[in-house]
Amino acid sequence: MPTQPYKQSAAKFIAGATTLYAQLASVLRSRILNGEWRSGENIPSIDELCSQYRLGRITVRQALQILSGEGLLSSQRGRRTFVTYSAGNQGGMPIFSSLASVETKVPNYSIRILSRSKVADLPVSRWAIGRDEGPYMHIRKVDHEGEQPYGLSSIYLVEDVYKRFPRNAESRSKLAQLVLQFSKPALATARERLTVEPADYEAAGHLAYPMAAPVARVERVFCDTAGRVLYYGTTIYRGDRFCLERDLTEYLRSKN
Amino acid sequence: MPTQPYKQSAAKFIAGATTLYAQLASVLRSRILNGEWRSGENIPSIDELCSQYRLGRITVRQALQILSGEGLLSSQRGRRTFVTYSAGNQGGMPIFSSLASVETKVPNYSIRILSRSKVADLPVSRWAIGRDEGPYMHIRKVDHEGEQPYGLSSIYLVEDVYKRFPRNAESRSKLAQLVLQFSKPALATARERLTVEPADYEAAGHLAYPMAAPVARVERVFCDTAGRVLYYGTTIYRGDRFCLERDLTEYLRSKN
Repeated sequence: MPTQPYKQSAAKFIAGATTLYAQLASVLRSRILNGEWRSGENIPSIDELCSQYRLGRITVRQALQILSGEGLLSSQRGRRTFVTYSAGNQGGMPIFSSLASVETKVPNYSIRILSRSKVADLPVSRWAIGRDEGPYMHIRKVDHEGEQPYGLSSIYLVEDVYKRFPRNAESRSKLAQLVLQFSKPALATARERLTVEPADYEAAGHLAYPMAAPVARVERVFCDTAGRVLYYGTTIYRGDRFCLERDLTEYLRSKN
Repeated sequence: MPTQPYKQSAAKFIAGATTLYAQLASVLRSRILNGEWRSGENIPSIDELCSQYRLGRITVRQALQILSGEGLLSSQRGRRTFVTYSAGNQGGMPIFSSLASVETKVPNYSIRILSRSKVADLPVSRWAIGRDEGPYMHIRKVDHEGEQPYGLSSIYLVEDVYKRFPRNAESRSKLAQLVLQFSKPALATARERLTVEPADYEAAGHLAYPMAAPVARVERVFCDTAGRVLYYGTTIYRGDRFCLERDLTEYLRSKN
């Protein structure tokens, strides 16, 4: 019955458009990012990696050089190579895990505000839902769990709703929740869009996360009954902390 | 009022744990993956990149070498460097975009079955919901839109439900939909979990996607009223084709 025999997923390297060292770097990068190889631990020696992956010493050295360049490994001459990157707390609670994302509760939650400024308009590149009718407060911030940053946000709030917030509330509470609370009863529609992308230098810097490592981008738009955008926000989540769970049961029942 | 001055997000390179060439490679990789630089197009010359990013020729050359090694660029001696990677169809419909993911409709949808085999148990590493009570049919497949692969799946179906499917139905229809249809009325719970990760060599190969580029991993578990797992599936989606939209309006109304 099998159309093609099932292959065990042992690493297999293929000569082609992608060089062998880039393929090996990719495999080893995954082991570091997913926490299999932990910060401070020695990785296998070059000889061990050669025999494990059936590759030559030059290929293995080039792969380790790439990962050292990315700040994931430290390989000083004459010493064992060790991991210099701390993966997210894989054993703990995922940081973004809920059936309704605006309600996530994070232990030891704190907020660092990067900037606040008043702007006339929403960004041109925004998700085009609702009517841009400013002025808006533009707030950039980083959300932390304990010492670890996990989300970088750029959020626009209509100024008249923002003015109803308690002083400095944005340093303590999530802005989506504040808008829900202080725009009552005007909020009429709320949409969310989730995509994945490589971390750029800005996200990597603020999130203490390797560049080009995967991040989740969540955009949200809340509008009032007249279609005016009350809230437009984009948050970049570290990929190693992101997890979205959904219960599809009710939906499926409605189809049966 | 600003806590810190707002910085325009022009590329800024910082000496530190990450080398300058790795930082530049990351920025240029993003331009290729997001389709800003298109397949077949020449990228700026080394001199132009040096002046654009205020970096030296050696750094720029090293960054281009990394991306060539990853199969994203072709840089032959004495010729202009051009892009050899086709980003997903950013202008078209996102391939995974729905309020209820199992219902996605993809134009020119086709399925390539990689393997079918009968197994006694679910994988040990599975999302631990429901009771493992086999035997299961294990089906590995790649979903395509037109010629382009976008999702690599590993799916386990209880054999007694699988036997009710029309012959070869798994080559034409989504397995989640077939289970919904042929397990009636036994389906009782359905859960979904979404995470992001770098593509490994296996996913990259099947999806014609660069290794270590971001992918979305979606796991689904459907159980019957007795808690037995009827369906357990994992799908890896190319990050450049993945988009999940949700309407949170009803949820927010229930909170107000």
